[in-house]
Amino acid sequence: MATAGEVITCKAAVAYEPNKPLVIEDVQVAPPQAGEVRVKILFTALCHTDAYTWSGKDPEGLFPCILGHEAAGIVESVGEGVTEVQPGDHVIPCYQAECKECKFCKSGKTNLCGKVRMATGAGIMMNDRKSRFSINGKPIYHFMGTSTFSQYTVVHDVSVAKVDPQAPLDKVCLLGCGVPTGLGAVWNTAKVEPGAIVAIFGLGTVGLAFDIAKNFGVTEFVNPKDYDKPIQQVLVDLTDGGVDYSFECIGNVSVMRAALECCHKGWGTSVIIGVAASGQEISTRPFQLVTGRVWKGTAFGGFKSRSQVPWLVDKYMKKEIKIDEYITHNLTLGEINKAFDLMHEGGCLRCVLKMHE
Amino acid sequence: MATAGEVITCKAAVAYEPNKPLVIEDVQVAPPQAGEVRVKILFTALCHTDAYTWSGKDPEGLFPCILGHEAAGIVESVGEGVTEVQPGDHVIPCYQAECKECKFCKSGKTNLCGKVRMATGAGIMMNDRKSRFSINGKPIYHFMGTSTFSQYTVVHDVSVAKVDPQAPLDKVCLLGCGVPTGLGAVWNTAKVEPGAIVAIFGLGTVGLAFDIAKNFGVTEFVNPKDYDKPIQQVLVDLTDGGVDYSFECIGNVSVMRAALECCHKGWGTSVIIGVAASGQEISTRPFQLVTGRVWKGTAFGGFKSRSQVPWLVDKYMKKEIKIDEYITHNLTLGEINKAFDLMHEGGCLRCVLKMHE
Repeated sequence: MATAGEVITCKAAVAYEPNKPLVIEDVQVAPPQAGEVRVKILFTALCHTDAYTWSGKDPEGLFPCILGHEAAGIVESVGEGVTEVQPGDHVIPCYQAECKECKFCKSGKTNLCGKVRMATGAGIMMNDRKSRFSINGKPIYHFMGTSTFSQYTVVHDVSVAKVDPQAPLDKVCLLGCGVPTGLGAVWNTAKVEPGAIVAIFGLGTVGLAFDIAKNFGVTEFVNPKDYDKPIQQVLVDLTDGGVDYSFECIGNVSVMRAALECCHKGWGTSVIIGVAASGQEISTRPFQLVTGRVWKGTAFGGFKSRSQVPWLVDKYMKKEIKIDEYITHNLTLGEINKAFDLMHEGGCLRCVLKMHE
Repeated sequence: MATAGEVITCKAAVAYEPNKPLVIEDVQVAPPQAGEVRVKILFTALCHTDAYTWSGKDPEGLFPCILGHEAAGIVESVGEGVTEVQPGDHVIPCYQAECKECKFCKSGKTNLCGKVRMATGAGIMMNDRKSRFSINGKPIYHFMGTSTFSQYTVVHDVSVAKVDPQAPLDKVCLLGCGVPTGLGAVWNTAKVEPGAIVAIFGLGTVGLAFDIAKNFGVTEFVNPKDYDKPIQQVLVDLTDGGVDYSFECIGNVSVMRAALECCHKGWGTSVIIGVAASGQEISTRPFQLVTGRVWKGTAFGGFKSRSQVPWLVDKYMKKEIKIDEYITHNLTLGEINKAFDLMHEGGCLRCVLKMHE
């Protein structure tokens, strides 16, 4: 493209400090260096992890930064040595990298990848340990190796999945985080079998999710506030001994305990998906585990990002998985603060922002 | 046998109250009722779980009682409806029952059995909710459904495994608890594969175990007291990222945490075997699980007792598993207090008591 090798000035939502409204700024995005890819972001969604870091509770949070990690776009240019994508490819940035070479990727036991973790955790790129974002020369940190609240972003080549160019990017952007995390927790981490009894703690955004969840197969809703007993005891009683699988999707350590303890003795498995605030700890009596319950967790649902996000896109195109039903709002980049307000108010499950007018 | 249907008066070691020496008494053992089996115990070993209950820390502990749960003997008589064993059969009492009929047994997912748990936890027999042991009419509680520190005991028929009559009972008595628990934790619960790096916390009895463990394949010994760093960090550093599997065999909740946290990110699995004191809790940061570690536990190594203890006996007879090497001392029932002293002093891994002179 004509902009290859040039600094691009574009709009981005900058988080200058915790809890202060994001500011739409003209940001300079440097060209990709070796092993990097510059992506024109077309659509991005908002996720609670963005809000978590923005809140200041994330110990890795760095400011000023450009948040955002659930998006889709088109490759604008690539740096030296990048072979797996080229300009014009439709892509989904992946906060969980997949290098296919490190000890983790080769283990066959995990989707975690160690290659760029040190850089993405520090808000910079691995090549020169600097940011590609700046405003009038002042660097702005990257976030999760994705920073999709910008019209253009630079990501490591191990952090970008090439997808079917026919797929609607305003929908499949959700395959950057939330949808694979939920599906993968069930398919890969818990390996739930048909007929199993499952408890989900935290049905997406409060309130609205209750109606939507019925479309996804949820049969019973239990409000802990309706009971005097601890919710784990309520669920054990309701299910004749406990659930087969439970999922914690909130990030609350007390709920994580309840999710474990509502599992059936002998085999119940609880999966932690939510991200707890820094320093908080989970606890339980070891007897819970000695009597057969299993406590585990998942990141990005155990999916290997570059290998499996394209496969998820294909499943969506074949109507084997749902995405559209999660999208309750569509706004523009300029309305991003309103989009966060909607999320916090509970009237919104997923809001997709159009990044270019 | 001539004693069938009669009360048998025999010697037993009675625990009258916590921490007070066991007293060898003449005990009356009532005949087995429906679904019960009276066993002449020939050999019993001592286990830390006996000492745990004896110490008064076990909230289920009831006094006076007859402890003991790792033993072997011969069926003396059977109650009404007992079909799977008969007088003369060589058997191993099983504190973990297997009824083959309850929800747990039928699940195919656990070795826990629910059938007699309420009775064994209360120190009585299910049939009439009374004890079969008494001294001059005063009842003495059962323990773990086994009470093997008696020359004769009565157990539920679901709690007794019939074994090869050729097997030496002074050796295979160890298949009543400790040996299957360790083997099963590795084989059934963790499913350790060849080549995996494994950390074991608590090598049996302090001190002596260090020499013996070498005969079982242990390659490295790490003493936490030799380091300033937390032991989990020491092990992560020693193993380039952590161990593949860890086992906690002590019952110390701080060690349980270390055992989890020394596991490798992405796949490390930690198994709790030790029994913690009442009310104590395990804790960790949920990030440990979200980044791929798995926390689980095991009881009797996941083995189905009546089905698999005979199989373990056969494996011992074919020299596929070791038992003899665990036995460091042989004493008699009359020397039982000395045997507990040896265990606490650390000079003893397993002491087998001969029950009849």
